[in-house]
Amino acid sequence: MSRPTAKPATLTELAQFAMLLEVTSQQKPGNIDRCHDYDDTRIEHFCASAVLAKPIFSCVENGSLSLGEAMCEAVARTNMYSGGNTHFGTFILLLPLIAGHGTAGAAEVVKKTTVIDAVLFYEAFGLTQVRVRSADPLDVNDPASIHRLVDAGITMYDVMKYSAPHDMVAREWTNGFALTRKAADLLFELDSGARSITQMFLLLMAAYPDTFIAKKFDERKAGEVMYKAREVLAGGWDLTDFDEECIREGVNPGSLADICIAGIFTALMEGWKWDC
Amino acid sequence: MSRPTAKPATLTELAQFAMLLEVTSQQKPGNIDRCHDYDDTRIEHFCASAVLAKPIFSCVENGSLSLGEAMCEAVARTNMYSGGNTHFGTFILLLPLIAGHGTAGAAEVVKKTTVIDAVLFYEAFGLTQVRVRSADPLDVNDPASIHRLVDAGITMYDVMKYSAPHDMVAREWTNGFALTRKAADLLFELDSGARSITQMFLLLMAAYPDTFIAKKFDERKAGEVMYKAREVLAGGWDLTDFDEECIREGVNPGSLADICIAGIFTALMEGWKWDC
Repeated sequence: MSRPTAKPATLTELAQFAMLLEVTSQQKPGNIDRCHDYDDTRIEHFCASAVLAKPIFSCVENGSLSLGEAMCEAVARTNMYSGGNTHFGTFILLLPLIAGHGTAGAAEVVKKTTVIDAVLFYEAFGLTQVRVRSADPLDVNDPASIHRLVDAGITMYDVMKYSAPHDMVAREWTNGFALTRKAADLLFELDSGARSITQMFLLLMAAYPDTFIAKKFDERKAGEVMYKAREVLAGGWDLTDFDEECIREGVNPGSLADICIAGIFTALMEGWKWDC
Repeated sequence: MSRPTAKPATLTELAQFAMLLEVTSQQKPGNIDRCHDYDDTRIEHFCASAVLAKPIFSCVENGSLSLGEAMCEAVARTNMYSGGNTHFGTFILLLPLIAGHGTAGAAEVVKKTTVIDAVLFYEAFGLTQVRVRSADPLDVNDPASIHRLVDAGITMYDVMKYSAPHDMVAREWTNGFALTRKAADLLFELDSGARSITQMFLLLMAAYPDTFIAKKFDERKAGEVMYKAREVLAGGWDLTDFDEECIREGVNPGSLADICIAGIFTALMEGWKWDC
């Protein structure tokens, strides 16, 4: 009798695993991790989302769903439980990374999105309570925006380009997934298995103001948090104290968390050894 | 444009989610949870295993793999990374529970296993470093045992029946999944969402000596741990102190952890609200 030969992990599985590695990492300042839940969103919600996203990731991996369709399906499916929009920004990054088999391919895939993808992306947004700018001609919460998209021939890529100046997740679509690439490279450089994730996250926080914090508070707050992360890295402040202050003030660098997951996925794809 | 209607979670997804809920729960004395890793096995290994088990669970759900085949495939696939046999006992319980759509069906499914299933189960064992009794005519580590299985017409059910007196996971196959049922019922009674899991686990520990501890140490040690869990429940000892003592002494109630996961899966199937 021959021994079963295990098939290697698929891109879909690596994407799910990246979501789980991020949320079970230790002490990412201000975010949900194995040390901290929020009242209404807990680590379990992120685990459920990682499990439930599987069929959508698989369809993107085999090319049977477009990015707009996949966004809509992913949000609808992972909305099954309470806990809010656990992985909305993550899907914006992981779906093209899966479709494009990495950052270089993703940068090409996103340019091929259509107006229909844009409309479906707005539909997906409608299923969430994601924070957006108001008084915007393309306000995602205004049903009339969908007609404007169609009339003006705006693709999903154009939507991201439009959001890029004030949203670092959207910006990844337009800059060749630059921070995703950076996050993945950091994991290889740090080279201490899954324990590298917290350090990589802190390095991102110290280098880039989080646009989710900028939208929730303001740009100044986002800048302050960046400088505090630098102080922690320089040894002038304790990581635990920084984490606790962020949690207390409701300062959660949610966009950097999405980029962190995209970076972990990219690194896993490229053979990063998380289990050393 | 119609909104996407999300398909409900499949049994496979609920089984994966049960594995994640167990390992991300807080402070299960002596076991890996979100508060504790071991040196060689960490929470990440359990997450990887939960992701990678998906195709095997799906095949069992749709009836295209027998229980013996599924054991072999599940162990081979989840052996991909280091970290040891994270979910061996869990698979022994979840596979029939998926195939039988719950405890009552599982109790029937297991009786239909064959000699081939038994041989494949031994093959699966051969891929692990799972602790077993020695000087046993059906020693799983003795290649000659497989011939004895075939010659004597011993099925996978018979193997479990043979192991039942000294292994509470195997015993589930022969007692109608009694402790799995008990664990699921406790979750409904405790009724405080995912936070119920730690309490359910402690109640199991206080009621049943763990056979993994009995094999690793001896029956007396397993009994002692049970009495200590009772003391914690009675308020005479702190849960954190108990947990730390177990970790320090290497006392991990691994069989009860498998039953805990099987109970969570059963409760999820039956509509238990983990997200309240």
